[in-house]
Amino acid sequence: MNNYHDYISFLHRLADAAGTPALEGFRASIHVDNKGRADAPADDARRYDPVTDADRGAERVMRDLIEATYPDHGIIGEEYGALNREAEHVWVLDPIDGTRSFIAGVPLWGTLIGLMREGRPTLGMMAQPYIGERFFGDGQKAHYRGPHGEGAIKTRACPDLSDAILFTTTPGLFNAEERPLYDAVEHKVRLARYGTDCYGYCMLAAGQVDLVIEAGLETYDVAALVPIVEGAGGVMTTWTGAPATDGGRIVASGDPALHEQVLRDLALCRS
Amino acid sequence: MNNYHDYISFLHRLADAAGTPALEGFRASIHVDNKGRADAPADDARRYDPVTDADRGAERVMRDLIEATYPDHGIIGEEYGALNREAEHVWVLDPIDGTRSFIAGVPLWGTLIGLMREGRPTLGMMAQPYIGERFFGDGQKAHYRGPHGEGAIKTRACPDLSDAILFTTTPGLFNAEERPLYDAVEHKVRLARYGTDCYGYCMLAAGQVDLVIEAGLETYDVAALVPIVEGAGGVMTTWTGAPATDGGRIVASGDPALHEQVLRDLALCRS
Repeated sequence: MNNYHDYISFLHRLADAAGTPALEGFRASIHVDNKGRADAPADDARRYDPVTDADRGAERVMRDLIEATYPDHGIIGEEYGALNREAEHVWVLDPIDGTRSFIAGVPLWGTLIGLMREGRPTLGMMAQPYIGERFFGDGQKAHYRGPHGEGAIKTRACPDLSDAILFTTTPGLFNAEERPLYDAVEHKVRLARYGTDCYGYCMLAAGQVDLVIEAGLETYDVAALVPIVEGAGGVMTTWTGAPATDGGRIVASGDPALHEQVLRDLALCRS
Repeated sequence: MNNYHDYISFLHRLADAAGTPALEGFRASIHVDNKGRADAPADDARRYDPVTDADRGAERVMRDLIEATYPDHGIIGEEYGALNREAEHVWVLDPIDGTRSFIAGVPLWGTLIGLMREGRPTLGMMAQPYIGERFFGDGQKAHYRGPHGEGAIKTRACPDLSDAILFTTTPGLFNAEERPLYDAVEHKVRLARYGTDCYGYCMLAAGQVDLVIEAGLETYDVAALVPIVEGAGGVMTTWTGAPATDGGRIVASGDPALHEQVLRDLALCRS
């Protein structure tokens, strides 16, 4: 890719810009809207979908920077929608992925910034400004910067599901069709943990955990994470093994052998 | 209390000392034992109870400091048990509360240090060294130090359960008798989040969330948190309203009016 280093610098610049409004809203008294579906059942995680001023402010500053710097590029953002999405280069923004953690004071949210080229995620960053962490990937390698210093990260080997640590944001993500499939995998793993959003994919890239299984995701939830997970040696696809780019039902595995096994398990239960 | 400021300085000294072994183990390749019950059912969260070298190292340095500084004080620790527990002053230590978060790379664990006097929790600290956060309380006031600076913290008003944000570490904490009671409350709240351990009580003290409901806790899980929660204006008791000191089934509420309501709900369901 031309301009590779320019794009990396620009990713950091976007993350810097988004960090200010995001941090101003974190643990402050902020206005919380609700764009969730009021008619959803009470135990449906999607019922409550908070959107904060911080969310909108962080996306706005990133869009302004992109439009000023790369006027021919497209943008897909969670809060302000798509602009020129057929462009060769499209920036995919989720200013605060993990808004529920954000409004509960828990620093597992992150700013997701992805660059797609011809519809394929090529560069991605997750920035967590409260902790001061950044995870970056380009599909070939992945990188961490934070309280522990700076360096390359890699997924870990875990060929056997019974040894795996699994993350999901909440079992409430899954609908009645998805839930039994997820539960069947959860019952086979060594340990399952909830509440992770984008942070879970970065822990997978950093070799701390082995699986993330989710559903109901959007392009802006995944486009930045695919180059990080794949750059660290992992695999991230839909439950049927298709590219993760369009979101939906997503599995990420640190060990490609484990990925095959989980896809088989999910498919087996469904047939 | 005599020596109040000495004790506060000493709490910070203990947290400093514990931070080094704890951080060395966090996100490193470390040996993980299993002191869980191998005969527990597969979906029982208590089946997998990892204990790391970091856990033991952090408790050891704190015990050594206490024994050298206050030789007539007692100690209750998660890893190395009780020493002189009938003393007037007893230090209660959980070197890494949230070991499952710890081994999964998630910085929601914390070092819990409590000081009980005549069996009553009087001072408490939660230290999260990776993020660089400390929460302190003495039952009258509570204090935060971290990336956002330093200052007093207070719980927030939330008289109505339908407005509340609820934390629990995992629904897997609850046994067959406890689970329906917990679920009934969870279905009434605005938002429930999992995966928080000690971090959840500190977010409650900081006015970010309204309720924490857990079960199966020990003295070392709660003794440090009671002075923080109560110092911030909250209430922390068993499900029947008894002092939380001995652990067991625990509810913490930021708003005392909400606490009454939740205790009634739990009791009503049980009768």
